[in-house]
Amino acid sequence: MRMSRLHAPTLKETPRDVEVVSHRYLMRGGFMRQLAAGIYDLLPLGWRSVRKVEAIIREEMDRAGAQEVLMPAVQPADIWKESGRWDYYGAELLRLVDRKGGEFCVGPTHEEVVTDLVRRDVRSYRQLPLNLYQIQSKFRDEVRPRAGLLRGREFIMKDSYSFDVSEEAARVSYDVMYDTYMRIFRRCGLDFRPVEADTGNIGGNLSHEFQVLADSGEDAIVSCASCGYTANVEKAELGAAVAVSAGVRSAVERVETPGARKVEEVAAALGIPVQQIVKTVIFDADGALVAVLVRGDVEVNEVKVKAVLGATQIRLASDEQVRTLTGAAPGFAGPVGLSGASVLADESVRGLEDVAVGANETDAHLVHVSIERDVVVSGWHDLRLAGDGDACGRCGGAFRAFRGIEVGQVFYLGTKYSAPMKATFLDEAGEERPMVMGCYGIGVTRVLAAAIEQNHDERGIVWPMALAPYQVMVLPLQMNQEAVVEAAERLYAELQAAGVEVLLDDREARAGAKFADADLIGVPLRVQIGSRGLADGKVELRDRRAEAAEDVALDAVVDRVVAEVRARLEQERSV
Amino acid sequence: MRMSRLHAPTLKETPRDVEVVSHRYLMRGGFMRQLAAGIYDLLPLGWRSVRKVEAIIREEMDRAGAQEVLMPAVQPADIWKESGRWDYYGAELLRLVDRKGGEFCVGPTHEEVVTDLVRRDVRSYRQLPLNLYQIQSKFRDEVRPRAGLLRGREFIMKDSYSFDVSEEAARVSYDVMYDTYMRIFRRCGLDFRPVEADTGNIGGNLSHEFQVLADSGEDAIVSCASCGYTANVEKAELGAAVAVSAGVRSAVERVETPGARKVEEVAAALGIPVQQIVKTVIFDADGALVAVLVRGDVEVNEVKVKAVLGATQIRLASDEQVRTLTGAAPGFAGPVGLSGASVLADESVRGLEDVAVGANETDAHLVHVSIERDVVVSGWHDLRLAGDGDACGRCGGAFRAFRGIEVGQVFYLGTKYSAPMKATFLDEAGEERPMVMGCYGIGVTRVLAAAIEQNHDERGIVWPMALAPYQVMVLPLQMNQEAVVEAAERLYAELQAAGVEVLLDDREARAGAKFADADLIGVPLRVQIGSRGLADGKVELRDRRAEAAEDVALDAVVDRVVAEVRARLEQERSV
Repeated sequence: MRMSRLHAPTLKETPRDVEVVSHRYLMRGGFMRQLAAGIYDLLPLGWRSVRKVEAIIREEMDRAGAQEVLMPAVQPADIWKESGRWDYYGAELLRLVDRKGGEFCVGPTHEEVVTDLVRRDVRSYRQLPLNLYQIQSKFRDEVRPRAGLLRGREFIMKDSYSFDVSEEAARVSYDVMYDTYMRIFRRCGLDFRPVEADTGNIGGNLSHEFQVLADSGEDAIVSCASCGYTANVEKAELGAAVAVSAGVRSAVERVETPGARKVEEVAAALGIPVQQIVKTVIFDADGALVAVLVRGDVEVNEVKVKAVLGATQIRLASDEQVRTLTGAAPGFAGPVGLSGASVLADESVRGLEDVAVGANETDAHLVHVSIERDVVVSGWHDLRLAGDGDACGRCGGAFRAFRGIEVGQVFYLGTKYSAPMKATFLDEAGEERPMVMGCYGIGVTRVLAAAIEQNHDERGIVWPMALAPYQVMVLPLQMNQEAVVEAAERLYAELQAAGVEVLLDDREARAGAKFADADLIGVPLRVQIGSRGLADGKVELRDRRAEAAEDVALDAVVDRVVAEVRARLEQERSV
Repeated sequence: MRMSRLHAPTLKETPRDVEVVSHRYLMRGGFMRQLAAGIYDLLPLGWRSVRKVEAIIREEMDRAGAQEVLMPAVQPADIWKESGRWDYYGAELLRLVDRKGGEFCVGPTHEEVVTDLVRRDVRSYRQLPLNLYQIQSKFRDEVRPRAGLLRGREFIMKDSYSFDVSEEAARVSYDVMYDTYMRIFRRCGLDFRPVEADTGNIGGNLSHEFQVLADSGEDAIVSCASCGYTANVEKAELGAAVAVSAGVRSAVERVETPGARKVEEVAAALGIPVQQIVKTVIFDADGALVAVLVRGDVEVNEVKVKAVLGATQIRLASDEQVRTLTGAAPGFAGPVGLSGASVLADESVRGLEDVAVGANETDAHLVHVSIERDVVVSGWHDLRLAGDGDACGRCGGAFRAFRGIEVGQVFYLGTKYSAPMKATFLDEAGEERPMVMGCYGIGVTRVLAAAIEQNHDERGIVWPMALAPYQVMVLPLQMNQEAVVEAAERLYAELQAAGVEVLLDDREARAGAKFADADLIGVPLRVQIGSRGLADGKVELRDRRAEAAEDVALDAVVDRVVAEVRARLEQERSV
């Protein structure tokens, strides 16, 4: 492709409201444009990289025996009512009504559609196992779309669904997909970890996320250096917390703490460490209020609270609800004498004495509280987020914390969809049984953003070879010198003939402008042709990852580039 | 691929509500399933054929210098309001509201999105011409989705948009796309015609449709045998009609015609030929009523009426409107003494005398009417649909009528979108001018259905090689004979190694069942392996188009199939 014709409008300035690196470089490099909040046009360069990810996914899914299909984006409400998710899914589901008044949604995921598809035609164990996949634009009406392709509303996803005769067989399908995902993300040139994960809106009881390690990641992960157990902090099983107790038993006392709502403010006001404060966090779980107690230095894990309660929906209570419950402004809730909400306590507060808690009175706290003496706790559980240095729940070792970007997730679903939707088959004994399902997703567009978060410098993107929109860029540095232009055109033709994906910067532009755009776009290899070197029959070969360039004979450069591209793809794959 | 693993659930019975051939065979052959009215799941075989069409389109679009992008499916209302189509587009536009109350639609086409995209980054004539294309699922909320993939609601479309500096340059882009479409549909193995067409909801003033000739086609086309002029009947320019006049001038007379509403009924009641009746058809054009007169044997062309009036929306008047206007039941409207509606007359009624018309009175007609004497006509125009035998408007020759399925359409748009949406550029003189646009669509899923309408027999589909999901099928006829199974497995492996797309029917099934499924699925070539032939070292090679089979030596069959596939692709392309 010629840059003079390519629609890749690079920008010198970063557009407003762009915070993360991948968003900045995708916009500045002319890979995409925003149409509406969380909704993007993919321009030729962006789309080429997406197609590279898609091609890798297709090859590996086909190799794993999955079959590609295409299910509709617009889905009727009926099947969502059958599965029970029409009411459950919430505002992220973009609902609509057709001209005849029928209820539909724009699909955020396809468990219902695929279960409906398979139940119609699969009758016998002989037709199983079956794994169907598709690559398609999905829509999730996020409250706060942000960070470009990392959390958009419309995005491209690979989703697949396995159907099996038994739990054991379904576990085999799950493992095959797990291995396939390992291969896919390796081939994408990503540094990632598979981690144990919560099942969220999808359901089921076994799940792994594939997390690309990056400081900008939305997800917090902990990994145990001793046993290797790695999990999302929402999911991570924690070891017993060591109770920190002052050991003093005094009578409860009320103290004024004007304006001190946050733990740090209360600690400062009272002159005590945050570990000597117990936080009381009020949740609305399916309409009932629940107070959760955790030590001042740890965070409540909403996912664990939800699981313990068996709740369908959970959210922080509103300020209004807190006021009504406690009679005080938010920030002063406490467990002593609290009525109207059940009290759950995290293991981190077990046995704590001489701690401070909210007084259920604006601008006041209680001190010298002894949790087991002064509070009616209805249940003790592991209710906190795991953090750096916490004890591993598997071996007691120390967790290390990471940030990650989730690019894929695999779920063992069991019969969550097949049972209510009656997707059954006749087994060898002629008995009717529900199929056992799994589902598996990859955020195709998110893979691009994650690759950039992990591979960039201050000048632009540093693409892995496997995802780069082009493999090599040819830069003639003096467009007014016939020999330079001729050599560039010849190299362009020869590299194409050798099967290399090549971008020729044939624009009438200064060398500096060409360097800047090439750095920004991040093509892995670059051949620079200048009149001085050319006089000696040499061109410069640059690696986007390195500062230095290498002089290569003009006649040898095509072979060098071909070899370099091949070696780089091999190397990325084998990481 | 092995049939034992392929999810291609063939059906013996045709599902209910299936009328056209392509719909029947796509359902019965396990190519697709219906999720909701006009909304289909594409199963592995159907999706493979779609991907073949897509690959041909990509190659030819890229060759033509167009660049692939992906624009969002969900589009904000703002840009549709800018272009003026938010109100104009009507109920086919699936509108929706997001969680924050923003208005959106599921895109039926992308003129607004692409114009918005290009106006942001293209500033100079140096960046033009530009042609952007995408392949994507579109949604149009059809009143009556029907005929499977021929008229669905969700369907796959290739749409592209060209931007140029001038009308002349835009005409060049149009011609390049016209030629590209000719190549694409030839490569798809279709028998088709480019025809002059109306521009409908898209707008602009030059358009061609690409019509696949098939008796089941929705579109009527006329083609002049003398000059080659070919057009959709809605668009076709007609030669002067020969006035058929009885030459008798009598006074107008009122006659009772109880229950005779249709032309044929009136002709029977009065004992005159239909050509001696003038039909009065009442339209509502942007809220005003218009009466259109045509001879009894021809049909009014709504598209031409709309164009003559310069109306935005036109539809047949409601029964209620007809009653209020004429004071009579529908079927008895006439032009004599009609007030409250302007009267337009088609050239076919010019000079007609002694004809019958409605009396504007229930169960009565007027006879001995002389149009020019008795009717106040506000304008004479070409307002009828062209038909078989009509005079060609270009040369006066005779039109022949065909039925067609529109698989593609190209439009010259001019500045219809760029002017209101301010997509401008600076020309060489530094002056700001609107870009001149064209747009070009291909109904990707419809191409599949059209190919089947044109290529089938009573047993199933007869795929063109270019669109077949697999190129050859290997049928071991006795699965209990080791030599047969072994030969089949060997052929399967060798054909794959030779780059042929092969489907092996390894199911434990009777030969008859395998033949029936193979005929239904319609793979072009078939290798049948039976124990008797195998004893002589022979297998049978069948062409799906022919009744007879040919004995080929087992050792020679791979080369034969490879040669046959290549020859067939060549042959289809060169039709």
